Amino acid sequence: MKQSLAVGVIGIGAMGMGVAKTLLRAGFSVRVRDIRPEADAEARAAGAIVCTSAAELAAGSAVVISVVVDSAQTDEVVFGRDGAAQALTTGGVFTDGVFIMCSTVAPDYSESLAARLAARGLAMLDAPISGGPARAHAGTLSMMLAGPAAALTRCATVLEAVADRRFVISARAGDGSRAKIVNNMLAGVNLAAACEAMALGLKLGLEAATLHQVVCASSGGSWMFSDRMPRVLAGDYAPRAALKILTKDLSLLLDAAREAGCPAELAATAHRAYAAALAQGFGGEDDAALVKHYAALAGVALPAAVA
Amino acid sequence: MKQSLAVGVIGIGAMGMGVAKTLLRAGFSVRVRDIRPEADAEARAAGAIVCTSAAELAAGSAVVISVVVDSAQTDEVVFGRDGAAQALTTGGVFTDGVFIMCSTVAPDYSESLAARLAARGLAMLDAPISGGPARAHAGTLSMMLAGPAAALTRCATVLEAVADRRFVISARAGDGSRAKIVNNMLAGVNLAAACEAMALGLKLGLEAATLHQVVCASSGGSWMFSDRMPRVLAGDYAPRAALKILTKDLSLLLDAAREAGCPAELAATAHRAYAAALAQGFGGEDDAALVKHYAALAGVALPAAVA
Repeated sequence: MKQSLAVGVIGIGAMGMGVAKTLLRAGFSVRVRDIRPEADAEARAAGAIVCTSAAELAAGSAVVISVVVDSAQTDEVVFGRDGAAQALTTGGVFTDGVFIMCSTVAPDYSESLAARLAARGLAMLDAPISGGPARAHAGTLSMMLAGPAAALTRCATVLEAVADRRFVISARAGDGSRAKIVNNMLAGVNLAAACEAMALGLKLGLEAATLHQVVCASSGGSWMFSDRMPRVLAGDYAPRAALKILTKDLSLLLDAAREAGCPAELAATAHRAYAAALAQGFGGEDDAALVKHYAALAGVALPAAVA
Repeated sequence: MKQSLAVGVIGIGAMGMGVAKTLLRAGFSVRVRDIRPEADAEARAAGAIVCTSAAELAAGSAVVISVVVDSAQTDEVVFGRDGAAQALTTGGVFTDGVFIMCSTVAPDYSESLAARLAARGLAMLDAPISGGPARAHAGTLSMMLAGPAAALTRCATVLEAVADRRFVISARAGDGSRAKIVNNMLAGVNLAAACEAMALGLKLGLEAATLHQVVCASSGGSWMFSDRMPRVLAGDYAPRAALKILTKDLSLLLDAAREAGCPAELAATAHRAYAAALAQGFGGEDDAALVKHYAALAGVALPAAVA
């Protein structure tokens, strides 16, 4: 089915490429832009129009989805040289468009970005996503949405195509990011607990595979335990989600907690373990590699990689 | 179907009563004993033979299942005055019987108990259970089993009746308890993280119900989050599992970790929160009441009880 909205996707790494292809499959006209040219050919082959700047992309897009890494990149693609905001000066569909911010950023940054865009007549949706590249490609991401009801309505077909689980948090920009970092704090602490428990179990003489089986069927289970511990059992630390990402998310949460004047003891304890794992050089490995830090502390050997 | 083994259940609180009734339903002849007489009538009505001492119970039981609270009670019902070990001096079915230890105790205690029973010719299964009273009554408990293969074989029909998820950890007594306390450490940390996250979310201005919905569908989910946070949303802290129990389990884990010379930073951090909640008088409430400690730290109001 042909869709009437022209959509631009800025940032076509694994997540953004999944979003772009999902939108193309759903019948949208899709423009893409990435500062690195590596993925241009793949996007073009899938039917996207490859742009040479965010400004060029925005000039032809009523809805711009930003899937870049962090707030620094977000600011660059909006307000930097040849950023999307340039398109507002030349007229076109973006002048009353919507900017959908999908990166995981500090809630305060998201709030201020929305205010700066509003001052230029642009609506923003604070819309962090969750689920990883496979679900991005399948159009089955989770999305935590905050922003004006009118913008949600205008983007409904786009949001429905990209994310099959959409949680409207509130009308206040920043609340999507707040929900995201609180969720990711739990993911981060639960993973750290899983790694601490596996190392401790090994130290107490239990077999890793047996312990894994028990916990998955018992009250100690968590989404992160079930998803990541099989990688530990297989000795497979090829990055699906790099350790440094969850470390950054915990940092954002701790900043927000400090700003709100609120303690966050467990999050801070977990973050110290992630920071140590980064210091030991594991930041580019899968986040399951956090277990290497706990194993080193405990003096135990982890299961070797399966040949 | 009539079963040939005579089984004794020591400790008929909510869990033990469930185990006894399940065994009666499965066709076993069941003796019960509890130091408090409150549950005697209920057990008798269900078809159990109510005994006046652990020794009397053991004299007629080839298999004795102990479902008492802790190691002090376990020692009392085995080696105390009129304890089960008395039955060994008078002959009878228990002299080559099996003692199934279902309490959550220190692994070292379980190991030494098995050795002391072995010196008297008795086999022991270290068999902590998990799942709560409802699953005890349904015969669908989880059980973490460690002990001699011969004892496992002899008790197979009993174990199958009581627990539909049986994890054989190893032949070493203590390993059932080790697996149990490592699992419960994860349950304890995941619950503490859930409570810290809810309090933090409220502090950041999010709605508790919305945050709950997001986390249950996202990477921050855990068994404890899904099971306990609805109680927080409903303001319902009537004890299903009292806060002091998980606090005790975390203590056992920290003792075992210290004994093994192994750090357990997250477990220790979580335990401090539980200890504070106990100090504030919440030990007899549901363990979801741990959130009251985090809410007090954060200065936020929790959802009120539903009228």
